[in-house]
Amino acid sequence: MWQLHQFPLCPFSRKLRLQMGEKSVAYELIRENPWEGNDAFLQLNPAGRTPVLHDPGRRVALCDSQAICEFLEETVERNPLLGGSAVARAEVRRLIALFDENFYTDVTQPLLHERMKKRLFLRQPPDSRVLRDTMRMAHGHLDYIDWLVDTRPWIGGATLSLADLACAAQISVADYLGGIDWKGHEQARGWYAVMKSRPSFRPLLSEKMEGLPPPPHYAKVDS
Amino acid sequence: MWQLHQFPLCPFSRKLRLQMGEKSVAYELIRENPWEGNDAFLQLNPAGRTPVLHDPGRRVALCDSQAICEFLEETVERNPLLGGSAVARAEVRRLIALFDENFYTDVTQPLLHERMKKRLFLRQPPDSRVLRDTMRMAHGHLDYIDWLVDTRPWIGGATLSLADLACAAQISVADYLGGIDWKGHEQARGWYAVMKSRPSFRPLLSEKMEGLPPPPHYAKVDS
Ligand SMILES: N[C@@H](CCC(=O)N[C@@H](CS)C(=O)NCC(=O)O)C(=O)O
Ligand SMILES: N[C@@H](CCC(=O)N[C@@H](CS)C(=O)NCC(=O)O)C(=O)O
Repeated sequence: MWQLHQFPLCPFSRKLRLQMGEKSVAYELIRENPWEGNDAFLQLNPAGRTPVLHDPGRRVALCDSQAICEFLEETVERNPLLGGSAVARAEVRRLIALFDENFYTDVTQPLLHERMKKRLFLRQPPDSRVLRDTMRMAHGHLDYIDWLVDTRPWIGGATLSLADLACAAQISVADYLGGIDWKGHEQARGWYAVMKSRPSFRPLLSEKMEGLPPPPHYAKVDS
Repeated sequence: MWQLHQFPLCPFSRKLRLQMGEKSVAYELIRENPWEGNDAFLQLNPAGRTPVLHDPGRRVALCDSQAICEFLEETVERNPLLGGSAVARAEVRRLIALFDENFYTDVTQPLLHERMKKRLFLRQPPDSRVLRDTMRMAHGHLDYIDWLVDTRPWIGGATLSLADLACAAQISVADYLGGIDWKGHEQARGWYAVMKSRPSFRPLLSEKMEGLPPPPHYAKVDS
């Protein structure tokens, strides 16, 4: 069986878990703290990053969430999440990069640093200026998500795709860390409520990072 | 015809130019300074980043170099650069991410900031501590490239692939900016000499960033 090396608030691992949920791919979770740089994990992924999808039986270790997403789309036909014309697929991949790179760098990564790493590992208070900048950047991204959801049925186009999963994965971690304010973003909020209610989302909403409880609204499907 | 929006030292645009060269796809260059955030460019790519591959006639604007690479592999059959089994393709994509993300963040991006942006746009001297760290990080990456080239015919496996192009694109920009010291990296150096001698590489080696000449060895195919 596949083993997914991850930690509960890794947004890229969440994207994969949503994909494997949608496609009914079985896996078990292996807990990692990638920032500790331990040897056994570096052996699996020289880049030292989660997620890694490992099948010890077949001696296959796949690294980088987007490489893994593409692998799963190529090998598991059930519920395709990257379909349509080449241009449509390019649009889905553009949006995945927007969420995995820009949203992550602007919002999720600083929140993980200020609210998770500083609290649990560095024992430092968060920097309130960074948190304010992060909220401002989040509003900019939510504006763009409002616009996407206003102009097409799903984030990436006509059908549910990896773009929805990538976006929801980043938002779910930011929301866990108190970084999402939906005021003025009704379209994005409506889309996220739909995502949250999918069976693939349930395991994420019930999981907690030790020592860092989520805010009360986090796991509620209707808020 | 395709128009590639880029600047001469954008490593992601270079990766695409190598791919289009290998596959004989015609394009013209449109010069951008993405960091200026001008409106017409943000219209094409809301993420405000190069490269963008635009076909005004077909009204198609593709963003994110990896999304564009996948699009070109899907639509242009000539000289495939992402072939083999699903596991082999996952390995190529893992390595592309390693170069586009880790090598770029550790080496190319700080060099572009210290040696290009500070000199041409910010009019500040480079920070010598950052430059030293960058050289140290570059050595770590070159060690890994030595190992890859030692264990397989090409960076990504049995054949020339997008992993070679991604790696060569990052190295070529770092080399232009004086950030590559080949001492102790004979395998990587040998592989890079082979890449440099390919016809697809020639247009890159002759192109210059205005006001920032490359070091003398940069365009020599045998050094
Ligand atoms: N593009 C990579 C990004 C992976 C990534 O950045 N993972 C983070 C955790 S969310 C990590 O492991 N960072 C290592 C560290 O913090 O030292 C992917 O999609 O897999
Ligand atoms: N993952 C993106 C990265 C693109 C990127 O970071 N481009 C840089 C230039 S090398 C950029 O436009 N940065 C915007 C800025 O510097 O403001 C891709 O592969 O296309």
